[in-house]
Amino acid sequence: MKNAKLVSKSHPTQQTAISIGDRTTIGGQDLLIIGGPCAVESLEQMETVARHLAHAPVQMLRGGVFKPRTSPYSFQGMGDAGLTILSAVRQRYGIPVVTEVMSVHQIESIVAHADLLQVGSRNMQNFDLLKALGEAGKPVLLKRGLAATLEEFVFAAEYILSHGNPDVILCERGIRSFDSFTRNILDLGAVVALKQITHLPVMVDPSHAAGKRELVAGLARAAVAAGADGLIIECHPEPEQSVSDARQALSLPEMVELVQSLALVAEAVGRRVPGVEPVRELSAA
Amino acid sequence: MKNAKLVSKSHPTQQTAISIGDRTTIGGQDLLIIGGPCAVESLEQMETVARHLAHAPVQMLRGGVFKPRTSPYSFQGMGDAGLTILSAVRQRYGIPVVTEVMSVHQIESIVAHADLLQVGSRNMQNFDLLKALGEAGKPVLLKRGLAATLEEFVFAAEYILSHGNPDVILCERGIRSFDSFTRNILDLGAVVALKQITHLPVMVDPSHAAGKRELVAGLARAAVAAGADGLIIECHPEPEQSVSDARQALSLPEMVELVQSLALVAEAVGRRVPGVEPVRELSAA
Amino acid sequence: MKNAKLVSKSHPTQQTAISIGDRTTIGGQDLLIIGGPCAVESLEQMETVARHLAHAPVQMLRGGVFKPRTSPYSFQGMGDAGLTILSAVRQRYGIPVVTEVMSVHQIESIVAHADLLQVGSRNMQNFDLLKALGEAGKPVLLKRGLAATLEEFVFAAEYILSHGNPDVILCERGIRSFDSFTRNILDLGAVVALKQITHLPVMVDPSHAAGKRELVAGLARAAVAAGADGLIIECHPEPEQSVSDARQALSLPEMVELVQSLALVAEAVGRRVPGVEPVRELSAA
Amino acid sequence: MKNAKLVSKSHPTQQTAISIGDRTTIGGQDLLIIGGPCAVESLEQMETVARHLAHAPVQMLRGGVFKPRTSPYSFQGMGDAGLTILSAVRQRYGIPVVTEVMSVHQIESIVAHADLLQVGSRNMQNFDLLKALGEAGKPVLLKRGLAATLEEFVFAAEYILSHGNPDVILCERGIRSFDSFTRNILDLGAVVALKQITHLPVMVDPSHAAGKRELVAGLARAAVAAGADGLIIECHPEPEQSVSDARQALSLPEMVELVQSLALVAEAVGRRVPGVEPVRELSAA
Repeated sequence: MKNAKLVSKSHPTQQTAISIGDRTTIGGQDLLIIGGPCAVESLEQMETVARHLAHAPVQMLRGGVFKPRTSPYSFQGMGDAGLTILSAVRQRYGIPVVTEVMSVHQIESIVAHADLLQVGSRNMQNFDLLKALGEAGKPVLLKRGLAATLEEFVFAAEYILSHGNPDVILCERGIRSFDSFTRNILDLGAVVALKQITHLPVMVDPSHAAGKRELVAGLARAAVAAGADGLIIECHPEPEQSVSDARQALSLPEMVELVQSLALVAEAVGRRVPGVEPVRELSAA
Repeated sequence: MKNAKLVSKSHPTQQTAISIGDRTTIGGQDLLIIGGPCAVESLEQMETVARHLAHAPVQMLRGGVFKPRTSPYSFQGMGDAGLTILSAVRQRYGIPVVTEVMSVHQIESIVAHADLLQVGSRNMQNFDLLKALGEAGKPVLLKRGLAATLEEFVFAAEYILSHGNPDVILCERGIRSFDSFTRNILDLGAVVALKQITHLPVMVDPSHAAGKRELVAGLARAAVAAGADGLIIECHPEPEQSVSDARQALSLPEMVELVQSLALVAEAVGRRVPGVEPVRELSAA
Repeated sequence: MKNAKLVSKSHPTQQTAISIGDRTTIGGQDLLIIGGPCAVESLEQMETVARHLAHAPVQMLRGGVFKPRTSPYSFQGMGDAGLTILSAVRQRYGIPVVTEVMSVHQIESIVAHADLLQVGSRNMQNFDLLKALGEAGKPVLLKRGLAATLEEFVFAAEYILSHGNPDVILCERGIRSFDSFTRNILDLGAVVALKQITHLPVMVDPSHAAGKRELVAGLARAAVAAGADGLIIECHPEPEQSVSDARQALSLPEMVELVQSLALVAEAVGRRVPGVEPVRELSAA
Repeated sequence: MKNAKLVSKSHPTQQTAISIGDRTTIGGQDLLIIGGPCAVESLEQMETVARHLAHAPVQMLRGGVFKPRTSPYSFQGMGDAGLTILSAVRQRYGIPVVTEVMSVHQIESIVAHADLLQVGSRNMQNFDLLKALGEAGKPVLLKRGLAATLEEFVFAAEYILSHGNPDVILCERGIRSFDSFTRNILDLGAVVALKQITHLPVMVDPSHAAGKRELVAGLARAAVAAGADGLIIECHPEPEQSVSDARQALSLPEMVELVQSLALVAEAVGRRVPGVEPVRELSAA
């Protein structure tokens, strides 16, 4: 994209791989699957998730501790206590974690406890935050704004890179539209385009796009087929009890089943799901 | 969907298969791939397309003869002369054809020469046309309106069914958004949802969504992974010379290559592309 | 607008005035206020509306007899019986009427009974209908499509003019957006722009934009200040009993009060509301 | 609005008036007109604006010193040097000033030099910033996000109020849509609705909505008629030389002429433009 010189490809096959933690990478042949609840609610909750999912079918855990909420009276996340929980699970299971950073002053403590820092949709053009993340020293997962054009999205990443941090992962998570049947419209054309425009890895969050758990699996498979380098999916030990986004979280068995189904699609487009073998069912032919 | 009693599933696995012409079907395990130019321009053009693509990788040809155009001064299609061309190719190659019907008075002649009648996005709520198609006696390909909600889309189909025609195929082709990078936003969440809501077959038109040929293949693969029952893709012997939509048409070799790549994705979700064997490249593993 | 040669201004002050019926005009200093129910329901209903509103504060009555409805099972309008009612009221009160035409075959009977033919949003690009209206011999009220760009809107009018009918009134009625608080977003920037681009009169329908009656008056005043040449507003003798759009219809006293309030705004921008004197309240100064 | 207890009206006529600086107020009968350039570029520029516009027709000056820009390589504003300029003009002309605050660490210096702190669209849900502004001790001008629902907008204000600052002015500035003819769609239905929902003053920014200077005046008049409590309009001594948003800035004479035209519209809805007498031209009647 014109003038986005750091994030644009210098040649058509340029592709950046980004290391997260000690042994996880995104941007190569292996897909990166991230799973976990919308919000960290308790140590027990996170332990259960890690026990069932790490390191396969999931190579990384998610869990919000600082939560951006429409209303100031809604649960705002566990804050530092949640960070401690994330940190404990991360060490016990040796699995990297990602959590959202909402402001500059949170960066230091999140960097100390997490492997990947997520910038949420509402902050995609919080330029002060983007600049500070340029100096964070850890990779950033940048979610597309609710009504951000591809140009704005790409340039938001350029802010981070131009301030010193080359490790940015783009994440399409659905955009606003006139139809409320799905929570947002997952823009997989953006994924196809971003893979051609930039050398950065591109993830997809089908959960926030769908807003309904029964639509997540289909969108996840479509995202892999479109060329996404990874997926971030909400799941919860007891989805209906989730403190937020209950309607879109998968149960842990549903999560396992979904990732299993992804392996064949990944293979079809020359990718792999780490730790999951594609199982071809006997053809109906 | 509440009150859309004819198009809604009566049980979760209900799936209607629709026969088009003598030997083509949509809604079963086999995907239906339709290809061809935006507009019929000459017999030679359509012959070339048919010679290269029928019956594999494409089971059906498309070509507009009545063209809805923003400006009254733009090419409005060849009209009846185009219909004669379509008809000739259809008979010579024994391949069914689809073309757009824009008004009630065109139905009779199109029914005489085509196997599937397309209702374009602009006419999705042309209720007079929908009612008349209820009595057309041939299957209908109903494209989603540019800003139609899923509810409106489903009920537009209900108009046709409730007026006597059970053979309706829904087609997602991208919706309007704030971003002009892609021509429209392909809403694959809608495809996933429609497959759960209705028993009708669901197709995807990645060409009109993308608006740029380099994005078509990625979106086509994503559509198959999302569960689409078929694809309708624009291709042209000389894309840059196309009288309309030149920017989004594939060349014929690109079309062949694309469909070849779809076979593996189809297999990954339990489907087949007729006449195309999935070719698994040697794994990098 | 480039190439829309018939609807574009040939010089900056060009303004077309269109006569409707014997003594009503739009496009001059006087605003045209149209009122009436969403749908014609009975002779008594239309008589009540006419008795209270004709010829001031309203110079023209509206009432749908052919109704475009999302569901085929919703009330589709009274049809020809409704047309007979419209016609009777029109003659008894000597007031012109407007009603929606949904298809070519309805044109003849509507032309016989109404003074202005409305093309609804869903049919803005029903090109077959537009072409036929080019030969209708009566003025057309063309509503903007739900997601039509200004270019598409202007060219839809060009279809009618280029097929022989110079008397087209454009009507902004709200466009689709992500926010469901209002039914649609009234795009008054479009009104300002259209008044600069075309010489055709421009009306505003605040009722369908608002979707809630308490928002109608504010939007109506804004539309006049933006430069609209007229307003079409839904009102009903018993709004809550309306068979459709009950939530947005004004009561007849509310309608009278609204138009009264418009007179001052009209005067502020050099316009007049026929039959209504601006009443300046004593200033709080 | 449900649960937005501090910003919602406790009774239908509740209206908060907010004092800005020593002698300016918004929320009463007098409209507040704010004018000035997109960005502070030089002392001379701001002096010229103040000399021509203060205190009538404009009661307050705008000028950005910290500029949110899509690209990190675009002009980011003069920063502290710009703040010094704003401060000098403010004191010399005794006129209050508003400027944008993009991050928490800028609050202290902006509070020291400006009378009103603007939160831009991109930061409407920068909750960290909103919370900090709850303790800023000066009024806040909160602009609606590019794709924010009314509910989200109202709750963003609730964040500021619930953190201690009762002085919040809401500002509608256009939302994203599919049509690029205007830069954004000015949502005056939101203004009408907000005036009914909240007791906070509501301003309108017609410049960013229009994106084209020739559309600004019409939208400004419409905003006043819709019930806005004030306007913030971009103007520049040499619009074509503006470092940003050149296409939408009015010249200073155009600004004077526009505000003059607003006085009559204001009077028509029971409001006044301070320092500007409504001049009624001789009626054509």
